[in-house]
Amino acid sequence: MKTSLDCIPCFFSQVLRAARMATDDERLVYQLLIETGAMLKDISLDSTPPEIGHLIYGKVREVTGNSDPFHEIKQKSTQEALAQYDILVDTVGRAEDRLMAGIRVAIAGNVIDFGAGRSVDMAREIRECMGRKFALCDYDVFRDRLEASRAVLYVGDNAGETVFDRVLIEQLGKPVVFAVREAPVINDATYEDAVAAGLDEVATVVSSGTTAPGAILSTCSEEFRDLFAGADMIIAKGQGNYEALSGSSAPVCFLLKAKCDCLARHLGVPVGSYVLKAIGK
Amino acid sequence: MKTSLDCIPCFFSQVLRAARMATDDERLVYQLLIETGAMLKDISLDSTPPEIGHLIYGKVREVTGNSDPFHEIKQKSTQEALAQYDILVDTVGRAEDRLMAGIRVAIAGNVIDFGAGRSVDMAREIRECMGRKFALCDYDVFRDRLEASRAVLYVGDNAGETVFDRVLIEQLGKPVVFAVREAPVINDATYEDAVAAGLDEVATVVSSGTTAPGAILSTCSEEFRDLFAGADMIIAKGQGNYEALSGSSAPVCFLLKAKCDCLARHLGVPVGSYVLKAIGK
Repeated sequence: MKTSLDCIPCFFSQVLRAARMATDDERLVYQLLIETGAMLKDISLDSTPPEIGHLIYGKVREVTGNSDPFHEIKQKSTQEALAQYDILVDTVGRAEDRLMAGIRVAIAGNVIDFGAGRSVDMAREIRECMGRKFALCDYDVFRDRLEASRAVLYVGDNAGETVFDRVLIEQLGKPVVFAVREAPVINDATYEDAVAAGLDEVATVVSSGTTAPGAILSTCSEEFRDLFAGADMIIAKGQGNYEALSGSSAPVCFLLKAKCDCLARHLGVPVGSYVLKAIGK
Repeated sequence: MKTSLDCIPCFFSQVLRAARMATDDERLVYQLLIETGAMLKDISLDSTPPEIGHLIYGKVREVTGNSDPFHEIKQKSTQEALAQYDILVDTVGRAEDRLMAGIRVAIAGNVIDFGAGRSVDMAREIRECMGRKFALCDYDVFRDRLEASRAVLYVGDNAGETVFDRVLIEQLGKPVVFAVREAPVINDATYEDAVAAGLDEVATVVSSGTTAPGAILSTCSEEFRDLFAGADMIIAKGQGNYEALSGSSAPVCFLLKAKCDCLARHLGVPVGSYVLKAIGK
């Protein structure tokens, strides 16, 4: 998915938010906004939003010297999500279609996203997720692919959301490789965050090799690219992974909540929708 | 009121919106965003937001060659507001305190503001304005100043809002000079817009001389500055005029709805509040 001109004001909001999380020095925040402004002329609109996010969040790290501004927020999100774990498992356990219930829970977890700048109401999303309507739902493809697959490559998104992913993974009934970001970027899950959510108990946790807020294959490790190329079923969570991988021909099922106008328009769904979209064959 | 770093993403949203209103050529829109980005390093945060707005909207005019992108929107707003005029007059006529009712109506009209980027629900604002609580209400000062004044200088804001201003002006019982922008900027009222709202029937309409989206005195004409310096009561409408004049020592009463976080924080009120704030002596 290419970057839209509508993304540009949003990039500045993201820089502002991340910079203030990284430093109390407003001069550095201002400098970052100025440098982002100067970078605009060099940005290609053929890039995907996470490619530009990669540049921007790299710049935040460089200027503030803080490599993980969202560290505490990520820990807190994971703790809060873990406190809901039993409720989530129970909800799925009581569902008629447990796989579908697991998918709903995994999408509900996508509400945790400090990149999109919305305030997070985890409890409300959990209460409402079983009744939400999907704007796009390629569930048949998902189920058929899962049945036919030897294993699942699950590309994770945010810390805390990982707990919700765990609940879905427990319903997949296949070996799962869970891919995280190589290093902190926004509140995206790293190896440490995945382990804190207990994902190492239900999956093999690996790094995708990228430090972008989305699995842009050209920025991933060769090992991950091989995994990706060989996978017969890939689940990719969240907006950043959709933006990075929507042009792929691999058998990807995207699970996400459509949180911004641009993404919603690209998918042809209303903002706030639950989406299960399958691409590839 | 100085510009905050929080204003910067908003400037980009404003450029995007105004540029798309001014041209269908997305390349020009992109160029404008890039030029705005490059301008950031030259902007002083000691400037007020309308000073930066002045630069930005000037740039939109220059790059697109469209000197009045909001022309149709302004006409439509005025027509829609005129269709409500009898209802507004009737509402004020039935009120126990007609002056206060006129003030409420004038603030309700401030909902028409395409700079702030919120969608406009004029009918709802009219329905609710009589019941709204003020977060700040220097009504005693307003009434005392009005009683003691020989005349009122009324600094207008947006086209369409002018109809609501007319309803308040009809309750003031003093000669009124109504000041408009010298040339189109966003949807701010010019002479043409004021006359279309019928303001010339209840006030002397003059230009403030500025093309900024707020009465920044250094950009106003000498005639307006003389009027301003000699006025014993000034009513200034809306956010742009507040931002431009909040540091003044003149006897200004600001009437506005606090539409953005930065302004609300500066005033110490919740977003969406009705505000009647008096400064000066």
